Amino acid sequence: MKKITLIFSVIFLIGCSNESTNFESSSINKNETFNWRLVTSWPKNYPGLGMAPERIADLVEEMSDGQMKITVYGAEEQVPAFGVFDAVSSGSHQMGHSGGYFWKGKVPAAQFFTSVPFGLTADEINAWVNRGGGLELWREIYAPFNIYPIPAGNTGTQMFGWFNKEINSLEDVKGLKMRIPGIGGEVLKEAGGIPVTLPGGELFTALQTGVIDATEWVGPYNDLTFGFHQAAKYYYYPGWHEPGPMLELLINIDAWNSLPKHLQVIIETATKAVNQDMLDEYLAKNNQALTELIEVHGVELRRLPDDVIEEFRDISNKILDDLAKEDETIAKVYESYLNFKKNVSAYHEISEDAFVESRTK
Amino acid sequence: MKKITLIFSVIFLIGCSNESTNFESSSINKNETFNWRLVTSWPKNYPGLGMAPERIADLVEEMSDGQMKITVYGAEEQVPAFGVFDAVSSGSHQMGHSGGYFWKGKVPAAQFFTSVPFGLTADEINAWVNRGGGLELWREIYAPFNIYPIPAGNTGTQMFGWFNKEINSLEDVKGLKMRIPGIGGEVLKEAGGIPVTLPGGELFTALQTGVIDATEWVGPYNDLTFGFHQAAKYYYYPGWHEPGPMLELLINIDAWNSLPKHLQVIIETATKAVNQDMLDEYLAKNNQALTELIEVHGVELRRLPDDVIEEFRDISNKILDDLAKEDETIAKVYESYLNFKKNVSAYHEISEDAFVESRTK
Repeated sequence: MKKITLIFSVIFLIGCSNESTNFESSSINKNETFNWRLVTSWPKNYPGLGMAPERIADLVEEMSDGQMKITVYGAEEQVPAFGVFDAVSSGSHQMGHSGGYFWKGKVPAAQFFTSVPFGLTADEINAWVNRGGGLELWREIYAPFNIYPIPAGNTGTQMFGWFNKEINSLEDVKGLKMRIPGIGGEVLKEAGGIPVTLPGGELFTALQTGVIDATEWVGPYNDLTFGFHQAAKYYYYPGWHEPGPMLELLINIDAWNSLPKHLQVIIETATKAVNQDMLDEYLAKNNQALTELIEVHGVELRRLPDDVIEEFRDISNKILDDLAKEDETIAKVYESYLNFKKNVSAYHEISEDAFVESRTK
Repeated sequence: MKKITLIFSVIFLIGCSNESTNFESSSINKNETFNWRLVTSWPKNYPGLGMAPERIADLVEEMSDGQMKITVYGAEEQVPAFGVFDAVSSGSHQMGHSGGYFWKGKVPAAQFFTSVPFGLTADEINAWVNRGGGLELWREIYAPFNIYPIPAGNTGTQMFGWFNKEINSLEDVKGLKMRIPGIGGEVLKEAGGIPVTLPGGELFTALQTGVIDATEWVGPYNDLTFGFHQAAKYYYYPGWHEPGPMLELLINIDAWNSLPKHLQVIIETATKAVNQDMLDEYLAKNNQALTELIEVHGVELRRLPDDVIEEFRDISNKILDDLAKEDETIAKVYESYLNFKKNVSAYHEISEDAFVESRTK
């Protein structure tokens, strides 16, 4: 083994030396070091959401043995929470970490790659994006903005959130001022509510001062961190609007193309590992946080009445159908999404869903 | 940018040169190249199961820019399908890819890290292993065998499988000779059946010649590949025995300790990415395969009667309780598993499970 080690070392040194002498003749130098900046839509080091880009940065630095360093900035440190897409698009920052539905005004189809009401769960959106043609479509629609997206985390099914009154009928939704982004917000609007989009860091104050009556955020683990239960007396409702929201790592395409192949694979692989890691974190932490919210802080967990759920579902389907009529790109993404959803949920019904039912019966 | 590139390149060359002169003074040379062999329990390049180690090998080679090459061998090419654990333990091969429940005779607690009847789903076992203390226990129980395990793929909920007659009552299970490994097999035995353990590659012939009356394997995607529907007329049943089986990458600990840190992180990260990729592949392919089995090949999908499911569940719980009494290690793993299952399923009931119900209603 010792001898083999020495031989390999010699080969490597020759390799290393060859690379070095060749680097000027190639446009990409395999040994160049990189110091990149990554902006996010989350508070710095925020559990789950904010830790994902930190972990991507750590893994990239470790796997590249220091060849690539990524510095992560929280929301507002360098750009506003909702300025991430533009920062990466312009190239002022090489990388961003955020959620596609924040850019719905610019790229309406991006919402399908985060989450749409009554859509795909975490496992299902992973399978659609990575193995069902979704990723190719996603890259196609971000390319005109000079952005290369990589799936970068999932919170699992989110809670509908915090309400200052019980929702016992559709009447209770009318006039309700609620922070809820994406298509979920449009559904609320159609049902008579008033949707608002605010970054996470502003929600506690908005609740406390009565600027909003209700908010969704993520789920027990994150909601406990923000302390919404301290803002007022709240009822807490399970979700329908973001069944498996996928976060995104955004990379400026010129910056991406300047990387040697092995660093590109390192970034893609680190991000895929973190995509799973985030879901693991939420699943491992949510129940404990929910128990604390209910048992220690007196939060009241409620269930939406069936007719409210049904109304939300009907409105969602209509909004998505209408959205798909806006242009061919949205129609193409929607068709791919719906087709995958039909297939994967048909199989889930006889496999995992049937199993879960048999486990708990 | 050009100037910065040049400066970084010079820094790298100095770094590279320093590493080279230092390597003899350290026990680990960061630049040594590695050629490892990986044995598996699956046919070479078999969809899903067999492709996972191939993908790990590809990612490791690409991310390390050729510093590490892993050659993957199918079952029987170098060692038998069930000889993987011993090969890695002895160090005859540095790596293996398999499923922990195959070693139940040697390491009974290993079964919890693959799948146990009525246990954790794919997402749940990921969360337990990676974020709920499972991985630390797994590494503790494999360490005496000089093996370092990494979670390396999941098929999702498996089908109960192929039966040459309908299962309408517990009577139909009595005397049934079925290929079913792990604790699922023990449940079948307790219910009056005759469990058999055979490698996947032998199942078609065993079915065709009537050596067995029934077999489980994986699910529609893999079962279609093996062509079980051509062996005889079969009824196909959804599963309860392997709700989210996690595969394993096994690494000989001496070989692992000989690697520089960045290659260790590369292997861990590649394997985590592939752990998700395998589930994506199964989810994307299963429904299409199931449709083909039913519509083209006339396979009849059936559902187990409730009293059969209930009996299987009662027997499973008793077997697991008894197993935990065998020794302290199993008891410790079982307690961690049960505690996590209780918590994660409580949260799933009000989140993803409730959502799936509201989506399909």
